[in-house]
Parts: sequence; structure tokens; C-alpha cells
Amino acid sequence: VVASIGHNSGDVIQKEAQAQLRAFLEQVENLDDEKAALSEAISEKYKEIKSAGFDTKALRKIVAIRKKDKAKHLEEKAMVELYAHALGVEDLV
Amino acid sequence: VVASIGHNSGDVIQKEAQAQLRAFLEQVENLDDEKAALSEAISEKYKEIKSAGFDTKALRKIVAIRKKDKAKHLEEKAMVELYAHALGVEDLV
Repeated sequence: VVASIGHNSGDVIQKEAQAQLRAFLEQVENLDDEKAALSEAISEKYKEIKSAGFDTKALRKIVAIRKKDKAKHLEEKAMVELYAHALGVEDLV
Repeated sequence: VVASIGHNSGDVIQKEAQAQLRAFLEQVENLDDEKAALSEAISEKYKEIKSAGFDTKALRKIVAIRKKDKAKHLEEKAMVELYAHALGVEDLV
């Protein structure tokens, strides 16, 4: 451990650790930039899908459902249907 | 617009639109996967940084600050310092 702040002379980070920290900052920021670019690409893709005449809210719902564990999702769905019947709103689900 | 649900016969999506919708779903899911992989890579990077002996909480704070508009950030910082002095806690900021 070269970088324990508070354990170096006068609470500064030594030169070598400083360079390493700077490199890490750059790596994190590059990954963050790539992630932001992908968020932007996804947003643009949904705009394209909407322009093609599709309902993106419905598609987002499908995407979200497919992200979930299938068995777990079907279990949750069955529970919602059970409650809907019990409460007389089965036409809504 | 080929895909207005509710405007096709019997509320089904026509075959061509269906194929297009399926392609869009795949594109969105691929982008989502890439984004999730980057989130994972960022998480791994911070683990590496922590293993190298650095305080990742401090580094995350620097990353967050650098994401902000600099002038706006300095303005906010000055305001916090002003309040800290007014409230006698300037040693904390």
C-alpha cells in the first residue's frame, strides 16, 4: 500500500502514488464516458423506434420484463392476477 | 407508420412490423447489455483502486465534482463556505 493518506510525510501522497491515482482517475472517467455514450445511444434508439411508429412505453415494459428472472416474474404475475380477481379488477390486469 | 397497434386488423401487429419490432428489441437489449458490462467494469476498476490502497470514496467524490460544470461547482462551494463561516463550522468544510 503506497497511498495511505495520513501515513505519509505531511499528509501528502507520494509522487509514485500520485501518478497512479491520476491514472486511475483517467481510467474511471473513460469508463464513465463510455457508459454515458451508451445511455445516449439507448435514448437515440428509442427515439428511432418511436419514429418508426411503435409505442416505446410498451417496448420498455417488455425489455424490463425480459431482464427479470422468468420463474420469479411468472410467480409475481400470478400473484397480481390472484389479487386482481379477489378485488374484482381482473379486467385491468 | 406501419405499427399502430389498434389500427390493424384485430389489434395484431402486421408481420413486417413484427419483424421490425423484434429487431428493435434485440438492438435495445444489446445496448443494455453493453451498458451493464460497463457498469460492471467500473465496479471492478474501483475494486482494483481500493486494492491498490486508495480511498475510493474520496476518488468517487473527485469524479463527481469533475462531472459538474466548473463555474457552477465553484459557486456552490463558495456558498457552502459562506454558510459554514456564518454557522461557525468552517473547520468542517
